Amino acid sequence: MELICLDLEGVLVPEIWIAVAEKTGLEELRLTTRDISDYDELMNYRLGILDREGILLKDIQNVIETLEPLDGAYDFTKTLREESQLVILSDTFSQFAAPLMRKLEMPTLFCNTLLVESNGRISGIRLRQNDGKRKAVEAFRSMGLRVFAAGDSYNDVTMLKAAHQGMFFRPPQSIRDEFPAFPGAETHDELLSGIRSFLIA
Amino acid sequence: MELICLDLEGVLVPEIWIAVAEKTGLEELRLTTRDISDYDELMNYRLGILDREGILLKDIQNVIETLEPLDGAYDFTKTLREESQLVILSDTFSQFAAPLMRKLEMPTLFCNTLLVESNGRISGIRLRQNDGKRKAVEAFRSMGLRVFAAGDSYNDVTMLKAAHQGMFFRPPQSIRDEFPAFPGAETHDELLSGIRSFLIA
Repeated sequence: MELICLDLEGVLVPEIWIAVAEKTGLEELRLTTRDISDYDELMNYRLGILDREGILLKDIQNVIETLEPLDGAYDFTKTLREESQLVILSDTFSQFAAPLMRKLEMPTLFCNTLLVESNGRISGIRLRQNDGKRKAVEAFRSMGLRVFAAGDSYNDVTMLKAAHQGMFFRPPQSIRDEFPAFPGAETHDELLSGIRSFLIA
Repeated sequence: MELICLDLEGVLVPEIWIAVAEKTGLEELRLTTRDISDYDELMNYRLGILDREGILLKDIQNVIETLEPLDGAYDFTKTLREESQLVILSDTFSQFAAPLMRKLEMPTLFCNTLLVESNGRISGIRLRQNDGKRKAVEAFRSMGLRVFAAGDSYNDVTMLKAAHQGMFFRPPQSIRDEFPAFPGAETHDELLSGIRSFLIA
């Protein structure tokens, strides 16, 4: 039996922190792991800004409610789920992803969790595990599943390597150049073609 | 992050082979692992009957198309998927489950696969792996997930034992007596209450 593992942001939905930065006008929230390479440091920086501005979880969720899946992502996941099995592997937080998951008809999502105080203040994060995408694919393989994985960024590379087959989706040129072994798709139709070739192989 | 693992037949949908026996009038297809303990032997017996009667995959799928999820199962899984993550672990076959999965809005399903010839004859089966429910729960735990599992029968016991918490759903009295450590739910509401207690623990 086959399983498709997909990254979330950049593949099915917009980059959530970028969208929050744009909608709140807080440009400082645009920084990513490309700017601050240490993830814990980056998250502490982000949570510090939220605290300073008095932004609660609900405020961010209200911003995320206004977002839509990427063009074509709804039909893409609908088709995938008819033809195979899908689990989304993401570094985002379940509380952020929820509004977008509803718009994709609730695919299964494994991700991280925000620690939230009773007043709605985000106090910290709980990672599912380190290098969680790779370990998830390895665990899926241990279940006797044939795994196809796709993502758009550096944090997807170990997942792509661990899968039986991997594919980039709209990767930056730098990633394309660094990992030429993985084909890249520019549209969901191209990605679906790659997945269908895998399913019948 | 939490994951709910559910058995399929008897928990969310009717017993598929029993339904096929009733709808086709082939009483011989009612036999289960309680009658023929060796699973391979049971499946060969079933496939022999299908061959003798000239029954193809499409004929069985047409029968399954007429089935509905158990009363309450639709709302139950909808609520579960809003509040947590769900993967269905079943010993059935993806080709049998598909029509019922559509009626449950396509939850993720890990199960076995039928080998089907180009003319639609079912020639054999491909198991995902032996003791696949237990191994799946163990693999999910290795992903850093807290796992709740529920099922109705003997083939669910190792899955319940492997999970952080397990619960029977409408188990036969014999199983209740043999494994008193696991609570049993008689309704989806009771099962949902058990799951919610687990989620907030």
